[in-house]
Amino acid sequence: MAGNTFGNLFKLTTFGESHGEALGGILEGCPAGVSIDENFIADELARRKPGQSAITTQRKEQDKVHFYSGIFEGKTTGTPIGFVIYNTNQKSKDYDHIKSVYRPSHADFTYDKKYGIRDYRGGGRSSARETACRVVGGAIAKLYLKNISFFAYTTQVGSIQLDANEGLNREEREKNPVRVPHAQKAMEMERLIKKIRKEGDTIGGVVACEIKGLPAGLGEPVFDKLHAQLGKAMLSINAVKGFEIGSGFAAATMRGSEHNDLFNTDLSTQTNYSGGVQGGISNGMPIHFRVAFKPVATLMQKQNTVDTNQKAVVMQGKGRHDPCVVPRAVPIVEAMAALVVADFDLLQKRFTK
Amino acid sequence: MAGNTFGNLFKLTTFGESHGEALGGILEGCPAGVSIDENFIADELARRKPGQSAITTQRKEQDKVHFYSGIFEGKTTGTPIGFVIYNTNQKSKDYDHIKSVYRPSHADFTYDKKYGIRDYRGGGRSSARETACRVVGGAIAKLYLKNISFFAYTTQVGSIQLDANEGLNREEREKNPVRVPHAQKAMEMERLIKKIRKEGDTIGGVVACEIKGLPAGLGEPVFDKLHAQLGKAMLSINAVKGFEIGSGFAAATMRGSEHNDLFNTDLSTQTNYSGGVQGGISNGMPIHFRVAFKPVATLMQKQNTVDTNQKAVVMQGKGRHDPCVVPRAVPIVEAMAALVVADFDLLQKRFTK
Amino acid sequence: MAGNTFGNLFKLTTFGESHGEALGGILEGCPAGVSIDENFIADELARRKPGQSAITTQRKEQDKVHFYSGIFEGKTTGTPIGFVIYNTNQKSKDYDHIKSVYRPSHADFTYDKKYGIRDYRGGGRSSARETACRVVGGAIAKLYLKNISFFAYTTQVGSIQLDANEGLNREEREKNPVRVPHAQKAMEMERLIKKIRKEGDTIGGVVACEIKGLPAGLGEPVFDKLHAQLGKAMLSINAVKGFEIGSGFAAATMRGSEHNDLFNTDLSTQTNYSGGVQGGISNGMPIHFRVAFKPVATLMQKQNTVDTNQKAVVMQGKGRHDPCVVPRAVPIVEAMAALVVADFDLLQKRFTK
Amino acid sequence: MAGNTFGNLFKLTTFGESHGEALGGILEGCPAGVSIDENFIADELARRKPGQSAITTQRKEQDKVHFYSGIFEGKTTGTPIGFVIYNTNQKSKDYDHIKSVYRPSHADFTYDKKYGIRDYRGGGRSSARETACRVVGGAIAKLYLKNISFFAYTTQVGSIQLDANEGLNREEREKNPVRVPHAQKAMEMERLIKKIRKEGDTIGGVVACEIKGLPAGLGEPVFDKLHAQLGKAMLSINAVKGFEIGSGFAAATMRGSEHNDLFNTDLSTQTNYSGGVQGGISNGMPIHFRVAFKPVATLMQKQNTVDTNQKAVVMQGKGRHDPCVVPRAVPIVEAMAALVVADFDLLQKRFTK
Repeated sequence: MAGNTFGNLFKLTTFGESHGEALGGILEGCPAGVSIDENFIADELARRKPGQSAITTQRKEQDKVHFYSGIFEGKTTGTPIGFVIYNTNQKSKDYDHIKSVYRPSHADFTYDKKYGIRDYRGGGRSSARETACRVVGGAIAKLYLKNISFFAYTTQVGSIQLDANEGLNREEREKNPVRVPHAQKAMEMERLIKKIRKEGDTIGGVVACEIKGLPAGLGEPVFDKLHAQLGKAMLSINAVKGFEIGSGFAAATMRGSEHNDLFNTDLSTQTNYSGGVQGGISNGMPIHFRVAFKPVATLMQKQNTVDTNQKAVVMQGKGRHDPCVVPRAVPIVEAMAALVVADFDLLQKRFTK
Repeated sequence: MAGNTFGNLFKLTTFGESHGEALGGILEGCPAGVSIDENFIADELARRKPGQSAITTQRKEQDKVHFYSGIFEGKTTGTPIGFVIYNTNQKSKDYDHIKSVYRPSHADFTYDKKYGIRDYRGGGRSSARETACRVVGGAIAKLYLKNISFFAYTTQVGSIQLDANEGLNREEREKNPVRVPHAQKAMEMERLIKKIRKEGDTIGGVVACEIKGLPAGLGEPVFDKLHAQLGKAMLSINAVKGFEIGSGFAAATMRGSEHNDLFNTDLSTQTNYSGGVQGGISNGMPIHFRVAFKPVATLMQKQNTVDTNQKAVVMQGKGRHDPCVVPRAVPIVEAMAALVVADFDLLQKRFTK
Repeated sequence: MAGNTFGNLFKLTTFGESHGEALGGILEGCPAGVSIDENFIADELARRKPGQSAITTQRKEQDKVHFYSGIFEGKTTGTPIGFVIYNTNQKSKDYDHIKSVYRPSHADFTYDKKYGIRDYRGGGRSSARETACRVVGGAIAKLYLKNISFFAYTTQVGSIQLDANEGLNREEREKNPVRVPHAQKAMEMERLIKKIRKEGDTIGGVVACEIKGLPAGLGEPVFDKLHAQLGKAMLSINAVKGFEIGSGFAAATMRGSEHNDLFNTDLSTQTNYSGGVQGGISNGMPIHFRVAFKPVATLMQKQNTVDTNQKAVVMQGKGRHDPCVVPRAVPIVEAMAALVVADFDLLQKRFTK
Repeated sequence: MAGNTFGNLFKLTTFGESHGEALGGILEGCPAGVSIDENFIADELARRKPGQSAITTQRKEQDKVHFYSGIFEGKTTGTPIGFVIYNTNQKSKDYDHIKSVYRPSHADFTYDKKYGIRDYRGGGRSSARETACRVVGGAIAKLYLKNISFFAYTTQVGSIQLDANEGLNREEREKNPVRVPHAQKAMEMERLIKKIRKEGDTIGGVVACEIKGLPAGLGEPVFDKLHAQLGKAMLSINAVKGFEIGSGFAAATMRGSEHNDLFNTDLSTQTNYSGGVQGGISNGMPIHFRVAFKPVATLMQKQNTVDTNQKAVVMQGKGRHDPCVVPRAVPIVEAMAALVVADFDLLQKRFTK
């Protein structure tokens, strides 16, 4: 247990720092015979990659993944899939100014306390650059789970949010840079992000995710409940501060007579306050969850802070950063969700007669 | 990975069904030499046990724990601590009526789908009775972590909530049955719960938790971040629908310039929107998190549902149930938090020079 | 990872010391629907229990196992099976004399160094009494794996050994107290053990084991190879000093042209030097392995040793001990083998289409 | 648990096939601040690499390792160390002839049964080429454990063996291609291997290993005993058929009065039949174990075998192979031993006060 592995049977281990030579990972446990569509994986990476639009960081990375094992003649072989993404646009000098500074609400101080040493360039291991490897693993999980759909989207940026009662226009999502399944709200959010960026500031948001096609029976109570593992997966993504499933925090104000999801005779339910999970196990209804992201900590403003000698200093944000992580977080949320589901799917197969 | 184990080095495995002969667990990895105060453990169990007040279920269980190993002459020996709690007040006949019925928003249907078989008495393994074992494990974790304090409390029942700006009256918490550190709000909440119960209904709520005394450096990025593991721990508790740390969902509406926690020169921070965790690692500030609970699914009302043959039936709630789980959830939240912290504490020791 | 758990999906965790109030364990991951024949489990325990014959320790333990969960109406439910064996014949006073003495070739010194504290009564956790719990877990594994047979037997005591070319008389094995599938050799070995005991001494031996009915495909290379996990399982049994599979150490002197197992057209092999495993995966042939046991360290003779203050002392063996562990080790070897196979069986099911 | 990870806290995960583009791994959990001497690691790889002498396979691989993360300014940072070794001398066409043939005593058949698909080129994942990654991990473990020495050596090839009573000439070991710490025996063994090779045949052997400098207290009973984990580590190496520690199989013929290791007053022991481990925990004495290797299965002779359609065929060995694996296995045995010790070392630190 050293923190770089996710999953039990469908298991991703990642390595890599923001400004190292390369990132990569090993995906173990993917069953043999899964067709690997490298274009699909490239598309998933493109949804996450920096520099994809005017409202993301301008670091230019191709994020091309090289597969070195576990795939033979286009199919998985059941052996571990080793992959590498070479960094091409590191500008480590951009970070000389933070070598001896603890940036507010970054992991500089805590990494120093934990390890006693720190690769300060671009946040090192604490950078969200690492999530590129999660997207690779998640993409393969999606290919394995081909009958299950994962649809995450931006539902809130700052105070602008989708109305729960509005239907989702799924086709719209990838047409706008904020990844909102609603053209009007997408424009409003984009405008807000641009305004915030201009001010050298950043803004938080919320990503929602829906999983459809999941059979009933996945999840491993009492500790490895489906939503507990989904929650952990989401909370492990950089900048996440909250997770809720189904009714979530709104459940606190509800009565049981209102919250209970009554069964139809086909064993679907009339409502879905449970969010597709009962007792930690999927019930065959769509999974619905929401993930809260804080505003990015790097500002293009002067900030007071402290250096490694505990002296007060003033720092000025440099480097290339996102004013709002939510648009690029959408594919990461899907990737982690797919990894969770693939793992529970394999675990459940142990009960095959 | 079969779902009944929590933790890596400080590791709890539990067994037991609601109406079996006994529940119990094995706590592995607790270092040798920890003084075991059995009275303290009994007190912790008493905070969770049924029948403790007018607003909880009236099932009468003594919840006496028997330790069978791992403790010698009052101290832990480093070997596994095996313990058993015998059930004394099972009334399995209370559950004959649900043998072939799927109760709405319970785990009856999903356990059947997962395992193909189900101990229907009192919910079997899906019952929150299992959490008694978590409280035993958590109590030992607290004894191990004697310089770290865990303070959970009820902060919301239905729409009644503590005002974030009001101070906590910590001594008050155990004086009222709702476990609110605020006498006035406690009375209001208690009144609401009693009203709800009288109507045969149930109500949700929120538990907040504060951990103090934690050193900086705990947590294992990138996947086993401190708050990710706390989140998983909380979401694994029965009836939990949401988890947030620090600013939580409110972070979505905040700007970075507002949300960043500026350092003092002693490396504490002026604000604590991060909730004591940066980059998945504790920063030495108090940990703050909140956990949302749904209303209990068992109602003392008639409900439409479906039986195991997919026929529509009407069921009437029986058995002994809580109208609101939040008061009894408080010690469970603390127990799980203590288990998480003890595990990360041991993990961090591998870096001792 | 605290050392008291074996297996991944079919997973046994044990607790208990030689002279504590009780021993027990939790078996997780056994699929639902397995019929639990409690008589069979009692019989397996009886094969291991002390006092079963004139050549074993005379400690009298009934070794009755109490199941507290995971079994409902005679069948497993898929939830963890908690079980307890109460100790009834502890004579802790027998051990007062070793409280401050390190017995030669026992774990007294190493437990003290590791944990800084030690339950000295009967060896505490280091006692082979713990293996009773393994036999319970193994018995359930056998019930799960009903088409696979596990046949372990004594093949050597001191210098008396079965001739590899002699056939096994399987029915004979349980008819003699040494558990040798050969009446004549059994008598010779029994005579030797009695002679050794009379001299206050002890003697080593070898247990062989054969597993039949295993399908091809079990094992998880490259680290969790079938024979690697079998080896670990056996080496974890008290007093074991060696493990070999198939040709074992004899392979060192063989040529490839002699050692290669040529295929028949039904994909069985003409010889079985591989012992049923190729590349870490079962090949459908019988598994054959051998396990070497050292002589018991407790002698009924005076021995020079050292006390906890590093003073030389003379100690006299007391307590009740086996002159040779091999006869009672036979069911333990089978139990561990069954646990290994059940785990790999469940792991392999993840590849079910 | 998908079989490609070894260790718990000091944890190596590997990927790669014999004739893929690259092999590699991720080493997690190495504490921060360890100086990485890349020359040392290269030297370790050179001891294992093919083509190093006239008695090994003539495949030419540079086996240069590229580190991509976890090392900053020459020191480990505590984050995962990702590394890649590019294959440069694959001759996949050499393997076209085995595409549809099951080679005797190889893993061709079992991989097909397990995964339903197989990268047949050079044995794919089942090739010992994978062990290069183990040597990288083991080399870092050695750098971490700088006060502990690991000395493995060839002690037997065919029937030629070192006499247990002869002293080891440690300096001699790396001077001869067989890696024997005895010049005369080295020559004899080399002559035998050359003779065997000329005949198109192969031969088995034994590697012994000695670990010095290990403190007392390492090992995690009852299942993860030090020698149990060492045994698993060794048995996971290609071609290994047996493992013994201390007295090993010879213990079977010994009496307790002879086998017990009596203490000196400094708590060392007068003899070391236990091989440095008591009750699964190191006792501060040198660790001694032995590992048996079978003869390589690929012969340069015609062999009868069966193809994937279960037709009898005659195959002729091609490719580049070792006539005896033992000389190149020596550094692999050390590497795995170092990984085991590093892991237990970190585990033991959880008990630091």
